[in-house]
Amino acid sequence: MKAVRLHAYHKPPAVEDVPEPTISGPLDVIVKIGGAGVCRTDLHIIEGQWAQAMAPQLPYTLGHENAGWVHEVGSAVTNLAVGDTVILHPTPTCGLCRACRAGDDMHCTNSSFPGLSHDGGMAEYLLTSARCCVKLDPQTRPEDVAALADAGITAYHAVRKAIPLLYPGTTAVLIGAGGLGHIGIQCLAALTATNIIVVDRNPDALKLADQLGAHHTVVADGGQVDAVKDLTGGAGAEVVLDFVAEQGAENDAFQMTREAGSYFVIGYGGTVTIPTLDIISTERNIIGNIVGTYNDLAELMVLAQAGKVTLHTKTYPLDSAVEAFDDLDNGRVRGRAILVP
Amino acid sequence: MKAVRLHAYHKPPAVEDVPEPTISGPLDVIVKIGGAGVCRTDLHIIEGQWAQAMAPQLPYTLGHENAGWVHEVGSAVTNLAVGDTVILHPTPTCGLCRACRAGDDMHCTNSSFPGLSHDGGMAEYLLTSARCCVKLDPQTRPEDVAALADAGITAYHAVRKAIPLLYPGTTAVLIGAGGLGHIGIQCLAALTATNIIVVDRNPDALKLADQLGAHHTVVADGGQVDAVKDLTGGAGAEVVLDFVAEQGAENDAFQMTREAGSYFVIGYGGTVTIPTLDIISTERNIIGNIVGTYNDLAELMVLAQAGKVTLHTKTYPLDSAVEAFDDLDNGRVRGRAILVP
Amino acid sequence: MKAVRLHAYHKPPAVEDVPEPTISGPLDVIVKIGGAGVCRTDLHIIEGQWAQAMAPQLPYTLGHENAGWVHEVGSAVTNLAVGDTVILHPTPTCGLCRACRAGDDMHCTNSSFPGLSHDGGMAEYLLTSARCCVKLDPQTRPEDVAALADAGITAYHAVRKAIPLLYPGTTAVLIGAGGLGHIGIQCLAALTATNIIVVDRNPDALKLADQLGAHHTVVADGGQVDAVKDLTGGAGAEVVLDFVAEQGAENDAFQMTREAGSYFVIGYGGTVTIPTLDIISTERNIIGNIVGTYNDLAELMVLAQAGKVTLHTKTYPLDSAVEAFDDLDNGRVRGRAILVP
Amino acid sequence: MKAVRLHAYHKPPAVEDVPEPTISGPLDVIVKIGGAGVCRTDLHIIEGQWAQAMAPQLPYTLGHENAGWVHEVGSAVTNLAVGDTVILHPTPTCGLCRACRAGDDMHCTNSSFPGLSHDGGMAEYLLTSARCCVKLDPQTRPEDVAALADAGITAYHAVRKAIPLLYPGTTAVLIGAGGLGHIGIQCLAALTATNIIVVDRNPDALKLADQLGAHHTVVADGGQVDAVKDLTGGAGAEVVLDFVAEQGAENDAFQMTREAGSYFVIGYGGTVTIPTLDIISTERNIIGNIVGTYNDLAELMVLAQAGKVTLHTKTYPLDSAVEAFDDLDNGRVRGRAILVP
Repeated sequence: MKAVRLHAYHKPPAVEDVPEPTISGPLDVIVKIGGAGVCRTDLHIIEGQWAQAMAPQLPYTLGHENAGWVHEVGSAVTNLAVGDTVILHPTPTCGLCRACRAGDDMHCTNSSFPGLSHDGGMAEYLLTSARCCVKLDPQTRPEDVAALADAGITAYHAVRKAIPLLYPGTTAVLIGAGGLGHIGIQCLAALTATNIIVVDRNPDALKLADQLGAHHTVVADGGQVDAVKDLTGGAGAEVVLDFVAEQGAENDAFQMTREAGSYFVIGYGGTVTIPTLDIISTERNIIGNIVGTYNDLAELMVLAQAGKVTLHTKTYPLDSAVEAFDDLDNGRVRGRAILVP
Repeated sequence: MKAVRLHAYHKPPAVEDVPEPTISGPLDVIVKIGGAGVCRTDLHIIEGQWAQAMAPQLPYTLGHENAGWVHEVGSAVTNLAVGDTVILHPTPTCGLCRACRAGDDMHCTNSSFPGLSHDGGMAEYLLTSARCCVKLDPQTRPEDVAALADAGITAYHAVRKAIPLLYPGTTAVLIGAGGLGHIGIQCLAALTATNIIVVDRNPDALKLADQLGAHHTVVADGGQVDAVKDLTGGAGAEVVLDFVAEQGAENDAFQMTREAGSYFVIGYGGTVTIPTLDIISTERNIIGNIVGTYNDLAELMVLAQAGKVTLHTKTYPLDSAVEAFDDLDNGRVRGRAILVP
Repeated sequence: MKAVRLHAYHKPPAVEDVPEPTISGPLDVIVKIGGAGVCRTDLHIIEGQWAQAMAPQLPYTLGHENAGWVHEVGSAVTNLAVGDTVILHPTPTCGLCRACRAGDDMHCTNSSFPGLSHDGGMAEYLLTSARCCVKLDPQTRPEDVAALADAGITAYHAVRKAIPLLYPGTTAVLIGAGGLGHIGIQCLAALTATNIIVVDRNPDALKLADQLGAHHTVVADGGQVDAVKDLTGGAGAEVVLDFVAEQGAENDAFQMTREAGSYFVIGYGGTVTIPTLDIISTERNIIGNIVGTYNDLAELMVLAQAGKVTLHTKTYPLDSAVEAFDDLDNGRVRGRAILVP
Repeated sequence: MKAVRLHAYHKPPAVEDVPEPTISGPLDVIVKIGGAGVCRTDLHIIEGQWAQAMAPQLPYTLGHENAGWVHEVGSAVTNLAVGDTVILHPTPTCGLCRACRAGDDMHCTNSSFPGLSHDGGMAEYLLTSARCCVKLDPQTRPEDVAALADAGITAYHAVRKAIPLLYPGTTAVLIGAGGLGHIGIQCLAALTATNIIVVDRNPDALKLADQLGAHHTVVADGGQVDAVKDLTGGAGAEVVLDFVAEQGAENDAFQMTREAGSYFVIGYGGTVTIPTLDIISTERNIIGNIVGTYNDLAELMVLAQAGKVTLHTKTYPLDSAVEAFDDLDNGRVRGRAILVP
């Protein structure tokens, strides 16, 4: 089968023929890929930024945002049938550790990460596990939803955690209306009646935010903290969801929270630098967020199938993977690039 | 009446005669002081560290940790009678803002802070509000419990917020077994079955921690992060309660948390410096804590009256206030110094 | 001033002249009434059903659902100014008991109930307390929102408690789309993405439910339990909100819940009769609900002012109160009857 | 191997030779039984009360409360090794449904119940699943802990759910200090600082309750509701945990709750009969409880291994199973009867 393979860091991956994956464990599932999202993390992988943390053996197949159809199942798989349309939770989990037994898939002590630690889904077929598959309405086109598998679940997970804080009369600030953030806006609008302020450097992103449910938009031109204060009567926001968390956003974000407020960190790259006096005198919180649970993904798919969360995508044939990477790297992709084998 | 008055920063306060306070508002209450705690914050006040934030008009009476007996009540006070034994929540609140209406006294938008912003309780009488008074068993000696009014409520509030995270099998690390911390240990032992590790520089403090319910103690001699990791199978603790939060403790504390763990900041003085990648990759939290609610104080008094939280105190007559301040400043106070008018 | 006075049970109230109320306590507030809702409970009062529980001294003024403008304030009132537009929480509370200090106004141990226990708001002026008043946008017409003061807060409170159970993919059944229920539907639609099924005997009520956000409607003609099961794949609903709770609805409601589901009782009149085996074998819950908190009412007003909750009302001059009572009793009121002095 | 087999309802089971179980699925585990608890439910099974609900094919092996050592594992089992000491969650679960993915093992849509629906653990070996096994300290004697597998997990699960309601100053009433209840008392004492009142008909049970941490005991002689009211200043208890829930206890229990209180149903057999007016006017709750999660059992074992929960047991050789059943049926067992193969 064809696959997008990384042979060396700092060089473009190659689209080439490799053997199809085969079932070996009783809970293994092979999925015929219908859509594989191209993510900024893929660019970082190519640049070698994940080489040490994930230590994949080169060459290997990229792709951690996948949807498709069940092609073959292991002997003990009971929840799936060949032909089922599925979207894949990004990290296969053991199902046996304390975290798995509490539903906290993202804290499984035995999980792996296809596309980062070993062969992923930019290929005709992907080997995954019964525990990763969320069944979808058979009408769903995998290429239309693949980006929810990673960008979507991450945004949904953070918003869901914030819901109890976002009763009517509160304000949520969302920093970064890009791939994850534009899903976050839609989740906020679907699940709360909070006042939504979106902050981004890019006026086009803010225009999209406006259409997706933002009540106010703020250009991040240096005056964004003051602008949020002005929009909240000087107090700041109950919740700030930061999909950037680098280049200063991470400290702006904390300043945008009000007394007793919470700063949800979702992006990464920067460093939080905050006096403990500022944390305690106003009793504010900094909340980490990573991917999400299997049930988070299943819930998000309910929103997607009800039309409450939609994605802007641009598809490329698998053979054009390098072009898709180039387009993403050069800002030529509106929404999400999706490879379709 | 006699009162401990601050006339100038950087100079010792004077014990002198001032007029007794008088009732002016319908919810005013005058309390005859039975015990007023001497706190490190009082030393900071004298050094002028709170001059800007609280802007008290000098001279004024110190003392923010008070208990006594109701002496006189305003016309609309219905919850108290003259003679009632009471401990006082440190911040009179309005009872009308959103925070007060949710029970979050520490976020009242109209609160004041006797002893910091205006006359406090190092005196024979204190003017406070009906909303501050927690009624006690008439047998209680105010001098025995006064330190719970501020040190106690703060420790209890943080521990209470952590309880849902501290199911059997978890570990809580408590940094700093001093005035607040030694109450925190007792609250943890009374309210959870978690494994308690106490970290302090002072071996005597650790000896006390041991008696109060710590399962393990660690001397903070530079190896404290590794020691906590060793005691938790390499993983770290679900909860770290940091009563120091300066001089490096604030960054140690975060490192002591495990994946999905929470760092509760209670002390202050240092600066948290943490890469957002470390926050999100393990989905950890940093939780601010300040004082506590009126109900927190009432609950803590239940623990105290059941003998589950006890205080070590050393009493001084009001006239010896300067000696008490000196003793505290020079490390000669075991437990808490209490002024008794 | 004019007031609607009940002189004897089982006889229509009289509209007659009485002295205006006067301020006596420091937190008293006199409100010039702009709208007073007519509620089925008023009919029950006239029939004597509340005589024993509330023991009002006849004659007295009816009206427990009130909005208007601040006319005069007591000496210690700091949160209101004469002329403010306000809606009134139905039960003045003490602000000092444990429940008040936790924000649970409905469990205040010292509350009263104007319109039930003493003079209410079907009059030109009402004596209430600073703690009851929620300030509104000055543009708001009290007659447009008065019904939110009791019907609205009760529906909102129950829905808000159910939110954590109503993640995407769940079903909420709402029984009774009348005065409270039609507000409940709008709250569910504004605050969750749950699948909403509305059950009522009245096809007109179901037509309204449909317009307000119901995804499915079921006529309560005897087959309603089966219909709900059919609409939920045989399983039942995660949450059933029962605004009727008499004439069999209370047992239907429990049967409509799924395993681990919760039955929220809001209406009253019937008797729940359930084998404990049915409760434990499926681990289901029965949740009581009554009125709501001050903050609930404030949050609901945010939804109302954003146009997310709207009311159908029919206004009557105060002089026509008896006609309004008659119309309600004979099913001639669509939505809520509002008296306008 | 030897096993305790039920051949016909209403006749004593026989201890006889049957083939040892064999591994067929990849997650199967065979456990060498070290202790199997004898439960009142076993008597009910023999009387045919579970015949319809569970529909086991006779003859089959009884025993649903088991602990022992891993004897053999299926090909995909990664969390266990032969020789591990284990206690078994009573219901093998699929690990794939929504409930399992949220950690709610007791609501698995595909679970089974060994000892009720098919062969259980009153035998030398038991076939179970990798997902059932909680690993124990190798020093643990299975016969000492087996009763925690069902009686223990059920009591712990209910107490754990009640913890957030049981802050200092509250009261918990526990009805029925028998097999489950005496564990519940210990869990309450280990995990909260609530005031514990135990109600039972049997003075001996109350004597034990006293030793295990009860602050007050009440003989259920008809005056138990009044006694609880007297012990709570007339108000009732925040939480009532009812391990009986038949013969009137279920309605007493509700009456013992205070305003805003919660009645936790754990036993079964009776019928709750409560006017909806009583539920809503005081906003009280009725909470169902069944077994518990895998993590509940793991947490309980931490308490047990710390000596905070202990069991009174009487052991019988497997051959004497019928004698054990007889002793239980005739009130001759103090604590729990345990069969040891």
